[in-house]
Amino acid sequence: MIEQTSVILDSRPVGPPTSENFRIMKNSLSEINDGHVLLKTIYLSLDPYMRGRMNADKSYADPVPIGGIMEGECVAEIINSKNSNFRVGDIVAARIGWVTHAISDGTDLRKIDQSVAPISTALGVLGMPGHTAWTGLNIIGKAKPGETVVISAATGAVGSLAGQLAKAKGMRVIGVAGGTEKCNFAKSDLGYDECFDHKLAENASELRKWLLEATPKGIDVYFENVGGKTTEAVLPIMNDFGRISVCGMISWYSGVGVDEAMRLPGAWRAILTKRLQVRGFIVWDHNDVFNDFLSETAPLVKSNKIIFRETITEGIENAPEAFINLLNGKNFGKQLVKVS
Amino acid sequence: MIEQTSVILDSRPVGPPTSENFRIMKNSLSEINDGHVLLKTIYLSLDPYMRGRMNADKSYADPVPIGGIMEGECVAEIINSKNSNFRVGDIVAARIGWVTHAISDGTDLRKIDQSVAPISTALGVLGMPGHTAWTGLNIIGKAKPGETVVISAATGAVGSLAGQLAKAKGMRVIGVAGGTEKCNFAKSDLGYDECFDHKLAENASELRKWLLEATPKGIDVYFENVGGKTTEAVLPIMNDFGRISVCGMISWYSGVGVDEAMRLPGAWRAILTKRLQVRGFIVWDHNDVFNDFLSETAPLVKSNKIIFRETITEGIENAPEAFINLLNGKNFGKQLVKVS
Repeated sequence: MIEQTSVILDSRPVGPPTSENFRIMKNSLSEINDGHVLLKTIYLSLDPYMRGRMNADKSYADPVPIGGIMEGECVAEIINSKNSNFRVGDIVAARIGWVTHAISDGTDLRKIDQSVAPISTALGVLGMPGHTAWTGLNIIGKAKPGETVVISAATGAVGSLAGQLAKAKGMRVIGVAGGTEKCNFAKSDLGYDECFDHKLAENASELRKWLLEATPKGIDVYFENVGGKTTEAVLPIMNDFGRISVCGMISWYSGVGVDEAMRLPGAWRAILTKRLQVRGFIVWDHNDVFNDFLSETAPLVKSNKIIFRETITEGIENAPEAFINLLNGKNFGKQLVKVS
Repeated sequence: MIEQTSVILDSRPVGPPTSENFRIMKNSLSEINDGHVLLKTIYLSLDPYMRGRMNADKSYADPVPIGGIMEGECVAEIINSKNSNFRVGDIVAARIGWVTHAISDGTDLRKIDQSVAPISTALGVLGMPGHTAWTGLNIIGKAKPGETVVISAATGAVGSLAGQLAKAKGMRVIGVAGGTEKCNFAKSDLGYDECFDHKLAENASELRKWLLEATPKGIDVYFENVGGKTTEAVLPIMNDFGRISVCGMISWYSGVGVDEAMRLPGAWRAILTKRLQVRGFIVWDHNDVFNDFLSETAPLVKSNKIIFRETITEGIENAPEAFINLLNGKNFGKQLVKVS
């Protein structure tokens, strides 16, 4: 008998989530049947999209039900196998949720090549966030060498790879991040040409002034991760025929600041007069390019040409607090929970 | 000596334009030089984009200067020619502005085939508005047979052709227009499956309810001509992977209603979760498809499979009032001024 610890959605948040919205549950897993494997979680990935799953309304995916296990992807070890495709000791990426253990029939498990990079990267730079960065830049943003891109949440799991891939492509790369430490890291380690701390900008106009000075050839691509002040700053100064990859809007996920933000007519005017293309995307619609992403990015990670940073929280019982911190931008790089 | 009468921008409007913003000017045109032609305007086209030219700020084009001739396209007759490409009596479309006469070196004149349809159509269904409708539907909106499209300003110069082309393509076509008469015309004459009067809707929610009932398979394409309540109604009920062709936003051109309108976060949320593509366009960027448009549309007009409606105002001195009425939706179909 294996004891499974999981994190349950106990109530739906009104505004920003608190620890009250989560509950730890213990459960016994039965013996595995033929064709199944038993998984032990090593790392759990925490990602901003999970905030949407806590709401009652369906967006692009069904909400987590009250009393249900929080959704998420893990890196896990196979500790028992009755499936010929997997052996004990295999390391896989699996969408099993916020759990210490799980049973799987083997579908949707992705084996991880441990020779490329630390296994945690399968949840970050070589996993969903990396795939998101690559897709948002290349497929949605149609980024080209010589162009200028602005990336919000510039040092986050997605932004940090988007910035480095853009730089490797020969673009001018400007970041926006929260805090001096993040901005310094963006410039000195990730290779951003410039990075602005939105917390130091009194309002969108001030941030816009800084961005204008840093983008003498204008902004061709905006990689949107946050919404809020940054969106308001960027939209009116996009170049004609610019592209906006709407990947996330973390500043608006909990309804905070929604009232103060830029109104639609101003955005529509920019879209019309500048002939912008604004396109929302969800990375799971782009599985067809996962191998393109991985074959370009894995060698760069292996040869240390792409760097990544992780914030690792110990223990699944601390996942809710780590998630709340993530929504407040207190993490640095990819937020993981070390589960075992 | 030819006396030219023109309409001048006398002052920039604050909010909706009034007749005070315009002035009639008389002027003498000199003899034409070698290579030039003398044009006599027959029809002047009035179009919503002209409102943008009255503002001081550059959008996609330079503003009309104070004291400058209002910009616009005309159908004109060549009444004197020292250019071997044109003969007296030729009928051309020409971007000569709000004038009775003009001199041209022949560049940018488009000869009109008088055997296809009345020459006024070169400013409407077979001219810029038609080209706009075709491009917005096919190139920007990527409209496909079997899909559902919502078209605002459904009976306007652009909307009325977009609706008929969509219907000819085998789409479900829903219009939004201002007034019962326009809605009835959309359904009985233009072939719209349904058309709603936005004036009868108390707010965006009510209009949204009507649209939901009329679109059992959802909305795949929104052809945006107006902004305001209609945009607010449509955005949250777009289908996943829907496309929005941002062609105009007439309700917001003069700054009216901008404060009450939907805020950006709601739009951004729809764009992200539904993976929408929102793309602004200006028809002059798409001259490469003008012949595609014309070769598809001209035979349909010639054989009366596409119908068009015009509001014709007599006399160039009445152009300002006709333009003000156009911005208020008082015209029906293409607004023209019969100049001579």
